[in-house]
Amino acid sequence: MQFTASQVAQLLQGTVEGNPEAIVSTFSKIEEAGPQSLCFIANPKYEQYLYETAAAVVVINSDYTLTAPVTATLIRVPNAYAAFAQLLQLYDEITKGQRKQGREAQSFVAENATVDETAYIGAFAYISENAVIGKNVQIYPNCFVGSNVHIADNTILYPSVTIYKDCRVGERVIIHSGTVIGADGFGFAPKADGSYDKIPQIGNVVIEDDVEIGANTCIDRATMGSTLIRKGAKLDNLLQIAHNVEIGSSTVIAAQAGISGSTKVGDRCLIGGQAGLVGHIQLANGTKINAQSGVSKSISKEDIAISGSPAFDYKSEMKSQIVFRNLPDMLDRIKSLEAKIQALEQKND
Amino acid sequence: MQFTASQVAQLLQGTVEGNPEAIVSTFSKIEEAGPQSLCFIANPKYEQYLYETAAAVVVINSDYTLTAPVTATLIRVPNAYAAFAQLLQLYDEITKGQRKQGREAQSFVAENATVDETAYIGAFAYISENAVIGKNVQIYPNCFVGSNVHIADNTILYPSVTIYKDCRVGERVIIHSGTVIGADGFGFAPKADGSYDKIPQIGNVVIEDDVEIGANTCIDRATMGSTLIRKGAKLDNLLQIAHNVEIGSSTVIAAQAGISGSTKVGDRCLIGGQAGLVGHIQLANGTKINAQSGVSKSISKEDIAISGSPAFDYKSEMKSQIVFRNLPDMLDRIKSLEAKIQALEQKND
Amino acid sequence: MQFTASQVAQLLQGTVEGNPEAIVSTFSKIEEAGPQSLCFIANPKYEQYLYETAAAVVVINSDYTLTAPVTATLIRVPNAYAAFAQLLQLYDEITKGQRKQGREAQSFVAENATVDETAYIGAFAYISENAVIGKNVQIYPNCFVGSNVHIADNTILYPSVTIYKDCRVGERVIIHSGTVIGADGFGFAPKADGSYDKIPQIGNVVIEDDVEIGANTCIDRATMGSTLIRKGAKLDNLLQIAHNVEIGSSTVIAAQAGISGSTKVGDRCLIGGQAGLVGHIQLANGTKINAQSGVSKSISKEDIAISGSPAFDYKSEMKSQIVFRNLPDMLDRIKSLEAKIQALEQKND
Repeated sequence: MQFTASQVAQLLQGTVEGNPEAIVSTFSKIEEAGPQSLCFIANPKYEQYLYETAAAVVVINSDYTLTAPVTATLIRVPNAYAAFAQLLQLYDEITKGQRKQGREAQSFVAENATVDETAYIGAFAYISENAVIGKNVQIYPNCFVGSNVHIADNTILYPSVTIYKDCRVGERVIIHSGTVIGADGFGFAPKADGSYDKIPQIGNVVIEDDVEIGANTCIDRATMGSTLIRKGAKLDNLLQIAHNVEIGSSTVIAAQAGISGSTKVGDRCLIGGQAGLVGHIQLANGTKINAQSGVSKSISKEDIAISGSPAFDYKSEMKSQIVFRNLPDMLDRIKSLEAKIQALEQKND
Repeated sequence: MQFTASQVAQLLQGTVEGNPEAIVSTFSKIEEAGPQSLCFIANPKYEQYLYETAAAVVVINSDYTLTAPVTATLIRVPNAYAAFAQLLQLYDEITKGQRKQGREAQSFVAENATVDETAYIGAFAYISENAVIGKNVQIYPNCFVGSNVHIADNTILYPSVTIYKDCRVGERVIIHSGTVIGADGFGFAPKADGSYDKIPQIGNVVIEDDVEIGANTCIDRATMGSTLIRKGAKLDNLLQIAHNVEIGSSTVIAAQAGISGSTKVGDRCLIGGQAGLVGHIQLANGTKINAQSGVSKSISKEDIAISGSPAFDYKSEMKSQIVFRNLPDMLDRIKSLEAKIQALEQKND
Repeated sequence: MQFTASQVAQLLQGTVEGNPEAIVSTFSKIEEAGPQSLCFIANPKYEQYLYETAAAVVVINSDYTLTAPVTATLIRVPNAYAAFAQLLQLYDEITKGQRKQGREAQSFVAENATVDETAYIGAFAYISENAVIGKNVQIYPNCFVGSNVHIADNTILYPSVTIYKDCRVGERVIIHSGTVIGADGFGFAPKADGSYDKIPQIGNVVIEDDVEIGANTCIDRATMGSTLIRKGAKLDNLLQIAHNVEIGSSTVIAAQAGISGSTKVGDRCLIGGQAGLVGHIQLANGTKINAQSGVSKSISKEDIAISGSPAFDYKSEMKSQIVFRNLPDMLDRIKSLEAKIQALEQKND
């Protein structure tokens, strides 16, 4: 497929700066662009590439001020990142081919499961008794759907997703491969002899509409009640979401973070990669947690940023980190002060 | 199912405080309780809910002193958490339905594998040559059991568990979905040109009785000998247990922790989430490791608590963390001291 | 199988010290050795065992100087670790049995996929349309190979590996169970109402020759272009490799580390367990990152070692850590100085 700069600009309702006939045939990152590449710049880190790129066309923010000549044709839009995302969506829609439908012969569907005829059930997928699978749901090979699980319309389970019994998955949810929904929460009662009794986990997991969950993530079922992932939350790979956790609407959690049992995360929070939260705390809406932070206390005020392990105010933590680097020097300064004081004290005696 | 408070009290050998005819029909967390809820309180964090709950019945410790009036009927027992666990076990036993038995048609069992007739082998499960599967073992769909693997009686493999060749799994073990037992340990010998030779991992993994392992955890096979998980250990989700590690009896490891090669963890240890241990160290029985800690040295004394990365004595680390938060202030105080000293020195000259 | 010390020495081109007729029948770690064990010593941590071992034969470095009498027969070689690795490879080659060939009946291979006749396709493995599977490739049960995926000769996918469409895997690659290659990168464009639009991830993953990847690792597909794992890289379990990351040749990454989007890691780097790298940075060749470090900036000089979160020079960080342990003492010293200064100031007034 080939497009001209002016065709692309029309799609994006942007304005062309340069040759409107410049031809593009592929999407590229600006640092890897070839002569027919369509690129974008949103992150200032990559600005330098604008002036050396071989790309034919670059989508860029309306308010960006050039600091040198550019050979690529520019398309100016209010938000280059969003506009480019829109182009990728269009491309993806066109190229991803027909949605799969129907049951592949080597799948297993329990007799009393209800599978909509527009759904795709891949080979080696297992749909247990009383499961309900909605319209246009895509269940790829090697998935397991437990008994009484409900999966609403237009949801996708990529290969090897496991959903234990009784869980609920909303509409337009995307779950990537290897993710496990509804395994037992980690609950044990210590006995007098030092060994443990298992505490049965009789709750479930509820995933609301428009959630996306990455690969190899674990969301444990509740001890009682539900572990809850609210509408539009975006969860990355390799997350640990423990029993009875609640994740707020449109909250974003980066890879390898872990949320301990019964903790409630508010709406629109941003949790960095490898961050950890203890159990039984609450985070207000809009809380931002830096990568690798360890959060040990509730945050009651909205839109606070925290960092560190244990975590506290982001800016303060950054300042402490700077001093931390110079601790050996600080110790030397104290030693020097001690020597001087001693000298002064002797003089004054 | 409905029960009265006095029926529940009888089961638990507890004493009723309030209406013995109060009716319960569901288990709930106290903060989510409705009018027919049976709840418990063990964690003091949740005490406040006792005085505002709509629950019909709350199980509570005998020695708990009320600080305000309560509308719920109370059942007093010596250990509310253990008593409630007992109720959940009973409920779970009654409701989980019949144990599955027999081979589903679409499974694969090698000709010379030995599968007890009371075992369940789900569709798309693969049992390799010379594997031995004990009584009442439940192997859910999409599991892989390698050649020469032995799985003892009453063990459960949830969907998509993989066990590589030669491993041993004890009785009453529970392994959750996506967990991989016996993949190659991470061993490579550097060559002169900077590339690596693989060191074959010819050992296995041995999991003793009554172990529970969460979802998407990895336990690597030994280079030689065995990686060993001792009786009653409880391992959470997404753990890394490297080659030749030993985990002691009744040790509990929270999610996303990692134990490096050849490290030996004692009995009854508690390892927090996202903690990491270097290789070739030993932890004494009863060691407690705080979440996100990094343990770089052996601990030879029993029942020590440590924290931090690198980890040291828990209480000392807490104190250092408090000072850490005020490091910028501390630097200012040093600067002020330096100025004052200089002034004094000039005066004294 | 039984061998004499002199036979083993001949294989390794080493020299025998002690009884050349000593018989070995098994490989053991030196701390677990029995009377017919063949062991090695390379790590000085284990030297003590040399003088108390029951092993028949120990492979040891030529330049090692005994500090006490030894009962085991020694075989001296220039590099004991490499020599022992060589023996294990030989043993592994002899004992691993015949390579599996051909398609098991319960597998699924799309009509227009191309599978070499020497390849093994296990039951419940799914090979999608237009996939190309090379010579001697081993695809174990429950694997999923997406459309247009190419897998080159002699590569092994252990059970339950998932490879999404369009990815490329080189020759002699080993991928362990549960690993997911090519799931969508984590990319979302925020909308005015606080919710997110998915950014389609139209790129792929390219894995070059001789790479080994552990269990339950995630390597996300690029937004555009390729996420790239270069020749001979060794990746451990439970890693997060985000979209558009590049991992250099012969770089080694330990378990549970995470590399954020678009970061480029050089050749021959060593990244410790649970380390995290932010996105859009570059690490020079030979960079060494301590376990649990958080890397927030590019490293432009080669062969640098860094530590901490945020990470800086390794040795400096170690020194700051030592002072950190004594922060409460340091605070006391400052208080004492302040008191003394005040006393001196009063005297001088």
